[in-house]
Amino acid sequence: MPAFQFLPFSALLGTVGFLCVTFVSFWTQHWRGGFAWDRSAKVFNWHPVFMVTGLVVLYGAAVLVYRVPRSWTGPKLPWKLLHAALTLAVFVLVVLGLVAVFQYHGKSIANMYSLHSWLGLAAVLLCSCQWLMGFAAFLLPWSPAWLRLLYKPIHVFFGSTILALSMAASISGINEKLFFSLTNKTIPYERLPPEAWFANSLGMLILVFGLLVLWALATPAWKRPESELLEAQQPLLH
Amino acid sequence: MPAFQFLPFSALLGTVGFLCVTFVSFWTQHWRGGFAWDRSAKVFNWHPVFMVTGLVVLYGAAVLVYRVPRSWTGPKLPWKLLHAALTLAVFVLVVLGLVAVFQYHGKSIANMYSLHSWLGLAAVLLCSCQWLMGFAAFLLPWSPAWLRLLYKPIHVFFGSTILALSMAASISGINEKLFFSLTNKTIPYERLPPEAWFANSLGMLILVFGLLVLWALATPAWKRPESELLEAQQPLLH
Repeated sequence: MPAFQFLPFSALLGTVGFLCVTFVSFWTQHWRGGFAWDRSAKVFNWHPVFMVTGLVVLYGAAVLVYRVPRSWTGPKLPWKLLHAALTLAVFVLVVLGLVAVFQYHGKSIANMYSLHSWLGLAAVLLCSCQWLMGFAAFLLPWSPAWLRLLYKPIHVFFGSTILALSMAASISGINEKLFFSLTNKTIPYERLPPEAWFANSLGMLILVFGLLVLWALATPAWKRPESELLEAQQPLLH
Repeated sequence: MPAFQFLPFSALLGTVGFLCVTFVSFWTQHWRGGFAWDRSAKVFNWHPVFMVTGLVVLYGAAVLVYRVPRSWTGPKLPWKLLHAALTLAVFVLVVLGLVAVFQYHGKSIANMYSLHSWLGLAAVLLCSCQWLMGFAAFLLPWSPAWLRLLYKPIHVFFGSTILALSMAASISGINEKLFFSLTNKTIPYERLPPEAWFANSLGMLILVFGLLVLWALATPAWKRPESELLEAQQPLLH
């Protein structure tokens, strides 16, 4: 039964995730001047694209790997490697997103002062720790079974927490960017030009995507059955 | 066992919630000029106080009513009435919070254009529908059992969704307000004056509070046992 429910859910989630990536790319390409990797303002545009693609959409896919019903049977290692590879790709995109904003800021714009930046930094730091600790506990062969059992609920809890942080960071970042960009020199944000409608909708889409992932993570019927999990984690006890 | 775990959790949640209300009140009182109910800028300050107190903290308490282990035994009606009363108090605070911001904006400042306002409006509209539909389905005596059973998971799902929306709205609202208020006329936000540190910390506290509530809602062991629930909902089937 969960297998049948999970498929249409995945199709819906994939569609919303695709829309998030398309919307953030179109926004920065069409209204914010497009992309470049130099010292111009265009380098900033990689920041929202990399962060939304990495820390929201790809991250959302990565945390749902063990909810795929096919992952419940057969060896667990390939799924672990897929989870690690996807979250590593998230980490690479996040680093590129950080480099983009720091390069754009340079020495003339202050870094790390807004609530948006605090939330984003917290998400990035937690995500990095999560990857390293997940790798050490669940992939290194000499990691003891008691450590895996102890650490797993913590890893799962922070998995949802990081997504909530990146949703809050993305939404406050889009809000902040629109106040910076849509001023009296162009059409003010408060007059709701097409760009404001479009980017506000992107914020709502990110919220919908994140809520769908959090809901899927919390749905008991979609969790990998606990008995199999214990088997895979404690082979020495059998 | 859940009873013992729930008590220290409630104490922690109560402390974080108290800190949220204290921080938002102190911020607006100490740095933003305090409160008034006239046409001055001070009327705005009620907006963050009412919204954080109502739609985050009180709402968080209201949605956890059925997680109190004492509510699992004995008649359910008193707990339903408590849940309805708390969420009605949330609604009153939210209406006052909306009146404050619209009165402050008057005719000179545009309404409902930022992503913050869209998220906030979505939270308020969903919260109002949720209360009316919850009242009709779960408190009116002529509501049929099949309707209660059908609507309950939807009500539960939107309970978490509304909290996530109000967290995102609060955080983007604090970020936005700091960019408006901390300009070159005072000390710019980017130089991180004490007010910026304080209000950024308020944003992080709201995130922590909301995550604790969402986590408690998703914890299976803290859910009201399903068999009793069915008994209470379907008395005619027994």
